[in-house]
Amino acid sequence: MDFEIPEKTRTTLEMIEEFVDKELTPLEYLFLNEPFRKVLPKIEEKRLRVKQMGLWAPGHAEKYGGMGLDLLDLALVSEALGGCPFGHFVFGCHAPDAGNIEVLHQHGTKAQKKKWLGPLVTGEIRSCFSMTEPEMPGSNPLMMETQAIKDGDDYVITGQKWYTTAADGAAVAVVMAVTNPEAPAHQRASMILVPTDTRGFERVRNIQVMGEAGEGFFSHSEILYQSCRVPQANRLGPEGHGFVIAQERLGPGRIHHCMRWLGICNRALDLMCSRAKARAMGDGVTLADKEIIQAWIAECAAEIRAARMLTLHTAWLIERHGWKAARQDISMIKFLVAGTLQKVIDRALQVHGGLGMTDDTVLAFFYRHERAARIYDGPDEVHKLSLARRILAEKS
Amino acid sequence: MDFEIPEKTRTTLEMIEEFVDKELTPLEYLFLNEPFRKVLPKIEEKRLRVKQMGLWAPGHAEKYGGMGLDLLDLALVSEALGGCPFGHFVFGCHAPDAGNIEVLHQHGTKAQKKKWLGPLVTGEIRSCFSMTEPEMPGSNPLMMETQAIKDGDDYVITGQKWYTTAADGAAVAVVMAVTNPEAPAHQRASMILVPTDTRGFERVRNIQVMGEAGEGFFSHSEILYQSCRVPQANRLGPEGHGFVIAQERLGPGRIHHCMRWLGICNRALDLMCSRAKARAMGDGVTLADKEIIQAWIAECAAEIRAARMLTLHTAWLIERHGWKAARQDISMIKFLVAGTLQKVIDRALQVHGGLGMTDDTVLAFFYRHERAARIYDGPDEVHKLSLARRILAEKS
Amino acid sequence: MDFEIPEKTRTTLEMIEEFVDKELTPLEYLFLNEPFRKVLPKIEEKRLRVKQMGLWAPGHAEKYGGMGLDLLDLALVSEALGGCPFGHFVFGCHAPDAGNIEVLHQHGTKAQKKKWLGPLVTGEIRSCFSMTEPEMPGSNPLMMETQAIKDGDDYVITGQKWYTTAADGAAVAVVMAVTNPEAPAHQRASMILVPTDTRGFERVRNIQVMGEAGEGFFSHSEILYQSCRVPQANRLGPEGHGFVIAQERLGPGRIHHCMRWLGICNRALDLMCSRAKARAMGDGVTLADKEIIQAWIAECAAEIRAARMLTLHTAWLIERHGWKAARQDISMIKFLVAGTLQKVIDRALQVHGGLGMTDDTVLAFFYRHERAARIYDGPDEVHKLSLARRILAEKS
Amino acid sequence: MDFEIPEKTRTTLEMIEEFVDKELTPLEYLFLNEPFRKVLPKIEEKRLRVKQMGLWAPGHAEKYGGMGLDLLDLALVSEALGGCPFGHFVFGCHAPDAGNIEVLHQHGTKAQKKKWLGPLVTGEIRSCFSMTEPEMPGSNPLMMETQAIKDGDDYVITGQKWYTTAADGAAVAVVMAVTNPEAPAHQRASMILVPTDTRGFERVRNIQVMGEAGEGFFSHSEILYQSCRVPQANRLGPEGHGFVIAQERLGPGRIHHCMRWLGICNRALDLMCSRAKARAMGDGVTLADKEIIQAWIAECAAEIRAARMLTLHTAWLIERHGWKAARQDISMIKFLVAGTLQKVIDRALQVHGGLGMTDDTVLAFFYRHERAARIYDGPDEVHKLSLARRILAEKS
Repeated sequence: MDFEIPEKTRTTLEMIEEFVDKELTPLEYLFLNEPFRKVLPKIEEKRLRVKQMGLWAPGHAEKYGGMGLDLLDLALVSEALGGCPFGHFVFGCHAPDAGNIEVLHQHGTKAQKKKWLGPLVTGEIRSCFSMTEPEMPGSNPLMMETQAIKDGDDYVITGQKWYTTAADGAAVAVVMAVTNPEAPAHQRASMILVPTDTRGFERVRNIQVMGEAGEGFFSHSEILYQSCRVPQANRLGPEGHGFVIAQERLGPGRIHHCMRWLGICNRALDLMCSRAKARAMGDGVTLADKEIIQAWIAECAAEIRAARMLTLHTAWLIERHGWKAARQDISMIKFLVAGTLQKVIDRALQVHGGLGMTDDTVLAFFYRHERAARIYDGPDEVHKLSLARRILAEKS
Repeated sequence: MDFEIPEKTRTTLEMIEEFVDKELTPLEYLFLNEPFRKVLPKIEEKRLRVKQMGLWAPGHAEKYGGMGLDLLDLALVSEALGGCPFGHFVFGCHAPDAGNIEVLHQHGTKAQKKKWLGPLVTGEIRSCFSMTEPEMPGSNPLMMETQAIKDGDDYVITGQKWYTTAADGAAVAVVMAVTNPEAPAHQRASMILVPTDTRGFERVRNIQVMGEAGEGFFSHSEILYQSCRVPQANRLGPEGHGFVIAQERLGPGRIHHCMRWLGICNRALDLMCSRAKARAMGDGVTLADKEIIQAWIAECAAEIRAARMLTLHTAWLIERHGWKAARQDISMIKFLVAGTLQKVIDRALQVHGGLGMTDDTVLAFFYRHERAARIYDGPDEVHKLSLARRILAEKS
Repeated sequence: MDFEIPEKTRTTLEMIEEFVDKELTPLEYLFLNEPFRKVLPKIEEKRLRVKQMGLWAPGHAEKYGGMGLDLLDLALVSEALGGCPFGHFVFGCHAPDAGNIEVLHQHGTKAQKKKWLGPLVTGEIRSCFSMTEPEMPGSNPLMMETQAIKDGDDYVITGQKWYTTAADGAAVAVVMAVTNPEAPAHQRASMILVPTDTRGFERVRNIQVMGEAGEGFFSHSEILYQSCRVPQANRLGPEGHGFVIAQERLGPGRIHHCMRWLGICNRALDLMCSRAKARAMGDGVTLADKEIIQAWIAECAAEIRAARMLTLHTAWLIERHGWKAARQDISMIKFLVAGTLQKVIDRALQVHGGLGMTDDTVLAFFYRHERAARIYDGPDEVHKLSLARRILAEKS
Repeated sequence: MDFEIPEKTRTTLEMIEEFVDKELTPLEYLFLNEPFRKVLPKIEEKRLRVKQMGLWAPGHAEKYGGMGLDLLDLALVSEALGGCPFGHFVFGCHAPDAGNIEVLHQHGTKAQKKKWLGPLVTGEIRSCFSMTEPEMPGSNPLMMETQAIKDGDDYVITGQKWYTTAADGAAVAVVMAVTNPEAPAHQRASMILVPTDTRGFERVRNIQVMGEAGEGFFSHSEILYQSCRVPQANRLGPEGHGFVIAQERLGPGRIHHCMRWLGICNRALDLMCSRAKARAMGDGVTLADKEIIQAWIAECAAEIRAARMLTLHTAWLIERHGWKAARQDISMIKFLVAGTLQKVIDRALQVHGGLGMTDDTVLAFFYRHERAARIYDGPDEVHKLSLARRILAEKS
C-alpha cells in the first residue's frame, strides 16, 4: 500500500488551488448576489486563462483538448475545484457536460461525435441530461413514462421531465425515454440526443429551487416533450441500453460528486476556522478559544478525512478492478460523504452566526443548494437499502 | 396536575386552524414564488377578515383592540399560526411588533403610548427592533458600539446595526444604544424610539439572506445611524435599563418563537405524511410503507410532542411563578425546540425528494429561513452554557 | 392547564427522596460489589422501615396494605425511587410483582386472590412473569410455542421460556401459554398461575446477563415447562384473553418504567455534575469549567425534562381518558425515554473517566443493565413502526 | 497511490483469520461464562500452535522470535485478531506487553534487555504498565503524584496507581514516577522497571470493572508503591524522559488499538447480519428483511470502511513520514474509530434483542468493556481539543 500522491499530480493541484484562490474566490460575492449573467463574462475570461495554462477539461481525452487524467487524479482535481461554486465550470469539467461527453465518447457514432463532441469539450456549446420525471421516483426504472415511439426513421418523443440541469442555454439534450416498453425493466429505455431547437422540445420553466429560479448554466428546467421528432440515428448506443449506459456513468460520476463535496467541506472548514479566529468574544478571547467550537472543528476534520480516504480508495478500486468490484463502495461514499457535507456546512454556518445566514459568505449558498446532495443520484435511503442487501447476500 | 385545554381555548384554536387551512394556505404558492408585494393585498384582505372575526391581536390588551389572552392560551395560538409563514402577520401577533408593543405597554410614557401604541396594535403602522451589530457577538452586552450621546434635550445616535427585521416600511425603530458607557455592563444601554424618517436614520440595504433580500415586512435591514437626533423623551423606561427590559421581553418572546416553531413542525410532519402516502413506489406500495420513513415519522412525532409539553409547561411556569422561576426552562426550550425544528424540516424535505428542494411546497422556505432559529435570540451554544452554569451552581 | 403538583404528593415525594438518599444510597457499594444475598438482610430492614412509615406499596389498594395512589402520583414516586437500583424493591412496588398484583386484582378469582394477593402485596412471597421465549420475537404473538393443553380439570404446560425475571426464589409464576391454537392471533393464549414447586417447572439457569448471572430477585431465568400440570382454576381471566390482559397492563407498566428511567436520568445527571465539580484539572480549574461538559449537562437536562413532561402527560391521559386514548403517547415515551436514558448514562459515565467503568459508582451498573430498556416490552423499532402506522392512518 | 495489499500479507491474514475462526471462536463461550483460569490452559495450547505455525509475535523483531512485520502489515494483523477478545493474547502481540517490549527494545540497556526482553517476547513472563493515578486526570502530566526519590544507587518509589492492566500475575511493572519535580512539566517523570516481587509493591485489588474484577491477564489492578526500592539501573532511558518515551509509544499503540477496534466492528457486523438472517419474524420474513435493520447495516459498513481507510493511511504516514507528521491523524483515529466501535456494537446488540444482553454471544462483553475505548489513552474530548488547536494554529 502506498498513499503517496505523485509529484506531477501535486504540482497540478497546487496550480489549480492557487488559481481558485486568487482568480475565482474574488468573483464569488458577485456570483452570490447578482444574476448569473452579470458574472458570466468574467467567468468566461477565466476559462480562457485556464485553457492557456493547459488545465482545461482535465478528465477528457487529450485528442479532444483535455488533459486525459485518470480517475484518481481527476478525483483530486475535483476536490481542489469543489470549494468554489463555479470551479468545475471554469475548468471545463462540470456536470452534466462531463458525463454527456463521457457517454458520447464511449457510445457515440462517428457522426454523433463529429457533430457534438468537439464543441462540448471546448465549451463552445453546452448540453443537458433529461432523465428525472416529476411524478415518478427516480430510483425505479419501471416507472418511467416518457416514450420514444418509432415512426419511419425517427423517434417521436412524448413526456415530461424536470430537474433537467443546465437546459437553459443548452444546445442539445440527452433524453432517457422508453423505446421498448415490453422488455425487462432495465432494458426498456434508450438515450437519445435531442437538439434543443427541435420542434416539440419545450422548456416550460426554470424550476424555483430554494428561492431561486436561476438562469443559464445554473438552473434546473422542467421540459415538455410534445411529439418531439428526431432521427433514430440520434440514439446513443444500442436500443434498450439506456439504463446500462447510465449505470456505467454512475461510478465515476459519483467519485466526481463526492470529491466536489469534499472540496466544499474543506472550504467550509477553512471558513469555520478563520471566522472563529477573527470573532472577538470580549476579554481577549475569540470564538476559536471556545471548546464547543474546537470540538466541532476536530469532528469535522476527522470525518472529512475519513470520507476522503474512502472516496479515493473507491476511485482506485474502479480504476484498478472495475466498477462492479467497487459497487458497494460507490453506494457507501454516496451517503457517507453527503452526510458529512451537510454536517460540516451546518456547523460552519452556525459558527458564522447571523453572518452565516447572509450571502456575504458562500456558506448559505452551499447550505441551501447542497441539501440536494442527499437526494440526487438516488436518495441516501435507496443506497443504504441496496448496499445492505448486497452485504447480506454475501454473508450467507 | 391537569393537562386539559379549556373548551373556550379549544374553540378559538379550531377557528384559527380552519382559517389558516382554508384562507391562508392557498396563498402560500404565491408568497413563495413572487415578491412579497404581489401577495400583500390578498394578505391585507385576510387581516380584515380576522379583525371581523374578533381574532385580531390575540396577545394584546382588549382595550387596544386585542383579545387579551394569557401566555398559555397565546402559546397555543402561536402554534396554530406557525405552520403558515405569514400566519402571525395576518393575525396581528407578529414579531417584532408584538414585542415592541409589549415594551411600550409596560414602559412607555403616556405620550409615547398615545402616539405609537394604537396604530401598532391595529397594524396601521409597523415597527422594528434595532439591536444586533455586525461586528459584535449579540450575546455580550459589553461589546455594543452604538452610542446615544446627550445633547441638550436630545440623544444623538451613532452606530451601525444589522438584522433589523422588518425595518423596510417600518414607521418607528426601537434602538438599543449605549447611554451610560461607564456603568456596569448590563446598565449601559437604553432603548430609544426613533421614527424612521428621522434625519440620520439610513437603511443601507436589505441584507440578502439565503439568496433573498426580501422586501417590506419580510426583510432584514442594515441600518446606519449617523448623528441621528431624537428627543430624550423618546427613551423607553429609565436610563440604562435597556438590557433589563430586553430580558423581561425574552421569556414570553421565547415561548412565542418556540410555539411557532412547533407549529412549523406540525405542518412539516403533516406534509411528510401526506407526501409519503401519495408517492407511489411501484407494486402498489407507497413511500408510507417504507419502514425508514415510518421510523422518521415516529421519531419526529415523539420529539415534537415532548418539546411541546416542555414549552407549555414553561409558559405555565412564567405565568404562575414568574420568569425568574422559569429561567432554566426558557433556555432549555430555546435549543431543544430549535433542534427538533431543524430535524423535522430536514426529514420532511428528504421525504419529498427533488420536490422538497423546490418552492412548490413551503418546506424549502422553512428549511432555509428557519435555519436561523438556532442562531437568533442567542445561539444554542450560549444558552447551553448559561443553563449548565445555573444547574451546576444549584447542585453545589 | 395546571402543572402544579399537589402539596400532599410533594410531601410524600420529599419523604421518599430523603429516605433513598440517607438510607438506600449508602448500601449501593455493597449491592454493586457483592452477591445480592450479602446486602439482602440490610435491604429487608429498610423494607420494614418503609412499612412503618406508611410508604409501602404506593400503587396498590389500601385494603391490601398499599397507599392507593393514582397513576400520576405513582409515576412521581417511581421517578423518586428510580435512581437507586433497589429503590422500588424496598418500597414494594417492583416489577414483576407490581404488574402481577395488578392482574390478580383485576382478573383473579376470589380463591386466587385469597391465596396470592395478600402475601404478594406485603412482600412475603415473590412472583415472576413467564412470557418471552428464546427462539421467538416477543413482538409477534403468533409465534408463541409454549402450549397449555387441557387434560381433565388441568392444564399440562410444555415449552421453554427465558428472561423470566426474578424467578429465582419466586413462589408463583404467571405463565403465558397457547390454550387455543386455532383462534385468531391475539386470542390464542391465556395467563396461568403456576406455583414454582409444581413438578415439571424447571428453572434451568439464571441467564448470565452482561457478565452476571445474578441471584434471587436480581436475576433472569430460563425455565423449562415439562408436562407441568396445574388446575384449570389457575387460569387468570377468560380463556384466550392472555394478550388482552397483557396489553391492559402495558400502559401503566410503561409509565412506571419510564418514570423509573427518568429517576435514573436524574441520578446520573447529579453524579455527572458532582464529579465535574470535584475533578481538578490543574490551574484551579475543574471539569465543570469545561464547555464540552457544560454542553452535555445542558442537553441532558433539557431532554430529561421534556421526556418527563411527556411521560407525565401520558400518565394523565391514561388516568383521565383511558389507555386507548393514550396509545400513541405510550409508544412515544417507550422509545423516547429509553433513548434519553442511554444518552444520559453514557455521558455521565464519560465524565467519570476510568472511574465510570468501575463499580465504585452506580453508573456502570446502569450502563450495562439498562441497555435492555431499548429492548424489553417491545424493542424501540417495533414501537416506532406501530406508532407511525397509527399516525399515518389518522392523517388520511 | 496504490491501495493493493501485498500477496504475502494477504496469505498471512488468511491464515490468521482461519485460525481465529476455527480454533479461537469455539473457546469464546467458555471465556465469557467462566473465570479466566478455566479457559487459560486451552488458550496456552493455541499459543503453542501459533508458535509452531510461525505466526507468533508478529510485530516484534525476528531475532527475538517475532515476525518483524512493519506497522502497516501489523495493523492488518491487529484487525484480523481483534474480533476475538483473546486473539492478540494468543498471537503474542497483546497490550501492555507489546508496548513494554517496544520500549525495552528502543530504550533498554543491554542488561535490561538480557533479563526481560527474551521472556517477554516468548510469553514466558508478563509485564504491566503502571501510569494512571486514581485522583489525577491522566491527560495532565503535571498532576502525577507518584514519586521516585534517589537514595544511594536506588530509587524509592511511593505512590498509588490504578488501572494497571494485567498486573495480576505479571513479573515486572514499568512504572511512571516523578524523578525530577523541578523540571518543566513534560520532563519530570521517568519510566522504571519494578519486579512485582519487590518489597513495597502491593497489588491492593483487581478493580471491579463493569461487574467483573477479572483475574490474571484479564484484570486491572490498583497498586500501592510503599517505599518500593529498586536500583537506578532499572530506569528506562534518560532521567526525565518518561513522557517522551510514552509519547513515541502512543502513535503505533493507537494504530494497534484502532485496528483491533475495527476487528471488533467487523465481528459485530458479521454477527448482526447472521442474526438478522436467522431471526424469523413470521410470514416467511426475517429480521434481515426489515428496512431499519438494513439501514443500520449499511451505515455501519460505510463508517467502518471509512474509519479503516483513515487508520491504514495513518499507519502508512507514521511508517513513511514519522509520527510527528501523523500527529493530527493519530488524534483523529482515536475518537473516530472509538465512536464507530460504540455505534456498531450498540446496533449489533440491538439486533440480537434479549439475546444480545446475555453472555451467549460476545457482544455484551464488547459492549461493556470496550466502552472504555472512548476513555483510555486520553478521552475523546482531550483529543478533539488538542487536534482542533493544531488545526487552528495551522490555518493562521
